[in-house]
Amino acid sequence: MRTEISTLGEFGLIDHLTKEIQLTQPTTRKGVGDDAAVIDNGGKHTLVTTDLLLEGIHFDLTYVPLKHLGYKAAIVNFSDIYAMNGKPQQITVSLGISQRFSVEDLETFYAGVLLACEIYGVDLVGGDTSSSLTGFSISITCIGTADEEKIVYRNGAKDTDLIYVSGDLGAAYMGLQLLEREKAVFGEKGNADFQPDFSGKEYILERQLKPEARRDIVRILSENGIVPTSMIDVSDGLSSDILHICKQSNAGCRIFEERLPIDYQTALMAETFNMNVTTVALNGGEDYELLFTVPLSLHDKMSTLPGIHLVGHITKPDEGCYLVTRDGQEMKLKAQGWNPLEK
Amino acid sequence: MRTEISTLGEFGLIDHLTKEIQLTQPTTRKGVGDDAAVIDNGGKHTLVTTDLLLEGIHFDLTYVPLKHLGYKAAIVNFSDIYAMNGKPQQITVSLGISQRFSVEDLETFYAGVLLACEIYGVDLVGGDTSSSLTGFSISITCIGTADEEKIVYRNGAKDTDLIYVSGDLGAAYMGLQLLEREKAVFGEKGNADFQPDFSGKEYILERQLKPEARRDIVRILSENGIVPTSMIDVSDGLSSDILHICKQSNAGCRIFEERLPIDYQTALMAETFNMNVTTVALNGGEDYELLFTVPLSLHDKMSTLPGIHLVGHITKPDEGCYLVTRDGQEMKLKAQGWNPLEK
Repeated sequence: MRTEISTLGEFGLIDHLTKEIQLTQPTTRKGVGDDAAVIDNGGKHTLVTTDLLLEGIHFDLTYVPLKHLGYKAAIVNFSDIYAMNGKPQQITVSLGISQRFSVEDLETFYAGVLLACEIYGVDLVGGDTSSSLTGFSISITCIGTADEEKIVYRNGAKDTDLIYVSGDLGAAYMGLQLLEREKAVFGEKGNADFQPDFSGKEYILERQLKPEARRDIVRILSENGIVPTSMIDVSDGLSSDILHICKQSNAGCRIFEERLPIDYQTALMAETFNMNVTTVALNGGEDYELLFTVPLSLHDKMSTLPGIHLVGHITKPDEGCYLVTRDGQEMKLKAQGWNPLEK
Repeated sequence: MRTEISTLGEFGLIDHLTKEIQLTQPTTRKGVGDDAAVIDNGGKHTLVTTDLLLEGIHFDLTYVPLKHLGYKAAIVNFSDIYAMNGKPQQITVSLGISQRFSVEDLETFYAGVLLACEIYGVDLVGGDTSSSLTGFSISITCIGTADEEKIVYRNGAKDTDLIYVSGDLGAAYMGLQLLEREKAVFGEKGNADFQPDFSGKEYILERQLKPEARRDIVRILSENGIVPTSMIDVSDGLSSDILHICKQSNAGCRIFEERLPIDYQTALMAETFNMNVTTVALNGGEDYELLFTVPLSLHDKMSTLPGIHLVGHITKPDEGCYLVTRDGQEMKLKAQGWNPLEK
């Protein structure tokens, strides 16, 4: 018997493979299913998250500079720790390297990782290097810490909680579209002198090539004594990620189209590409913004905080998960996730 | 300027890329350079180790069953935690999957990982799955714990300390040679009915395909109140691994050829393949035995413990690192490590 992975999709596959897992160690406080695992070895709790990045799937070295790749690979893991309301402290970096890489290439990649570490106050503490017969493989694990009572899981959202997101959405995705287009043009022209014109598009490119993790939001929430009831970082797109919160919290939600924070460059580029900007904001992914819920009673306090946007509210589970469009229609939110049939 | 990675080799490359790393976090007790990193979040210390395994480099699915692969991938990480005198408690498993894999294939791989977890008392707490354009990629991170005063590093060996190794050496390597030969024969015959004859060779095959981590040795040492002065697990071969201890401890060593523990099947297979069995024992690798040093004063106590073998002693650094052959000659020990020019 052979069941194709495509019949399950990413989230279905993970659910299928992990549904039988029993946790047996008293030190394990949270296993599979959140932004990070939570371990209690006494003292502060330890958070662990990991990502595997493969050439041709997660990045394209045609237009991603190695230093940026190293920076981003670190940042996306820091983001998972912040999404638990924790502080990243250590990372390990494992690399599978093909022969076309030189020592200088790896120095450049490492320089990006170490720059991220320096800016975010994280130590690089280990890893593994190996040759690879094919492309470049990167596996990063990040270790963080948090006080037990401040850890925020995905499963604590309650009916009437407000839903907030930091920054803006869809920019990284439009940056990727732009890079893909320029790569195609470059390929057609076959001209090494070809110089793409990126002026006026710096923001969406930076969001794709050099994202930041929202340490500042975690700090602002902490300084204002706010512990969200649930939180996740937006890596797959707001639509998929609010569905994770709703599923694990046994709740529904309403997201309001008119409230989705979208940068001007994102909107302009979506228009250029003839894409629906709401779809881009909901499903683009790689935003690395924080998506979180807080009790309705905190509304007034929340509205004084910079850099966050109220985008909707949590409902009872039987009310489902919907986008409320500008004209008042309700459209069901869908998880995108990773599809093994697509690149 | 382009420097080929082959000019540095594995250990040279790691040294080169990590030599500038500064540890800045007070919770980081040990960074790059041991079997695991050590983190102090209060309470017991947390140990972290990680491995990246790539198809065609670290395993060949022609003759490695997926369940065995899952088991081994977990075990080699547990072994790194035991080599710190710690206890593995959690792992994360990230997979890059090409389209030729079915859901059933992944279930089989996971069954192997979970069997190892069950036997060793470890929880699977997270990971990442992704499609892969090429082969099967596996990244495993293991989290362990240990009391601060019981952690054993590579850098504590002292002049006159005795050097012990558990179990026997070279068997996994001879198992690999046997599997490679049968694969070649199978390829020549092009015959699906071909059945290799492995009778009488079960031990070396099991050492290659289903190794165990030496939790029992850690327990025996603990029960006898012995904390080694240094320890490492034998993954690259005794020669490379004792050199790691000597380099980090600023010491020399003498290893005695006549004392190398070698199983009968290993010796027989080496003879069949016309290989020098001492070279196999020193450089074969993948033994996952524990190699450790204890003060000379513990000799009498150590000689009562089962499953360990005295193979040499530590010297002053200026005496170098040598194998003393059966006929009394001294041969310099060499690190093998991974070579990107080889498979």
